Amino acid sequence: MQTEINEIKRLIRDIPDFPEKGVIFKDITPLLKNPRVFRISLDKISDLIDEWDFDCIVSPESRGFIFAAPLAYKMEKEFVPVRKPGKLPYKTYSISYELEYGKSTLEMHVDAIDKGEKVIIVDDVLATGGTTKAIIELVEKAGGIVVGVACLAELTYLNPRQTLTNFEIASVIKY
Amino acid sequence: MQTEINEIKRLIRDIPDFPEKGVIFKDITPLLKNPRVFRISLDKISDLIDEWDFDCIVSPESRGFIFAAPLAYKMEKEFVPVRKPGKLPYKTYSISYELEYGKSTLEMHVDAIDKGEKVIIVDDVLATGGTTKAIIELVEKAGGIVVGVACLAELTYLNPRQTLTNFEIASVIKY
Repeated sequence: MQTEINEIKRLIRDIPDFPEKGVIFKDITPLLKNPRVFRISLDKISDLIDEWDFDCIVSPESRGFIFAAPLAYKMEKEFVPVRKPGKLPYKTYSISYELEYGKSTLEMHVDAIDKGEKVIIVDDVLATGGTTKAIIELVEKAGGIVVGVACLAELTYLNPRQTLTNFEIASVIKY
Repeated sequence: MQTEINEIKRLIRDIPDFPEKGVIFKDITPLLKNPRVFRISLDKISDLIDEWDFDCIVSPESRGFIFAAPLAYKMEKEFVPVRKPGKLPYKTYSISYELEYGKSTLEMHVDAIDKGEKVIIVDDVLATGGTTKAIIELVEKAGGIVVGVACLAELTYLNPRQTLTNFEIASVIKY
């Protein structure tokens, strides 16, 4: 187990001062270039959330899709994309929020979530939890129920669990 | 077979005048909300390319990732993201090109492709082939060899095969 975690960690590259000075960005592209370890990463996420009761995976573009779409395929769940303004072609709900660096707006189709549907949110990296919190609000606006948040890597030093109280959180790797 | 194709087609929604007047956008989000038919779609793409000799799947953000990442997972291939300017954190190759509507630039990490590596390009919809052609140039700049292009839906009325001569093209659905 620890060996696999170390294998994953070795393939996540630190990029200092990206996207702005003082931020250390976790670059997952070396991991994506290793099919065996990418598979282990996805299987570890699905193991962590296997007992959760949900029908739908909601995920923000673009890196979130890289983990959320294979999980939706593997676990046979619905996949709902959350995107930047103007990207989704149909009617949308919209939310603006403060980010670790700057401000952002996200959109989700109004027919993406059924009333009362149980949903989880999947992203590659869970940082401050700001983006995830915004997505939770989008899902709730649509009448969905968020049962948990799953990610590959959690930046515990940014305290996402302080922002996401009342939600189950699953992360394969903690920094 | 035909029934499955019809099932997929029924879950792709036409959005007229998106992203601009006169364009009919193929919205795949209803398909993504149906786990069974999403799985069929992915399995059909992988069936079409199963005999192709390649190690790496290159795909443009964001919708491309939704098909390319599960295929990389399922087929145990490398996954390389191609992204909009400023999104990839490491050193990149860059290419600018004309799009069906407007102009665009794409980037790929300089260490994403090994010299001589065999690569396929995966996207959700193949339209004019302009984006795919730009990605082929990026891959070749990095020393890779493009062996084919795979997508869920091909807009044959936009003649992508005229732009992508000399490449194998696999599409599950043709409009």
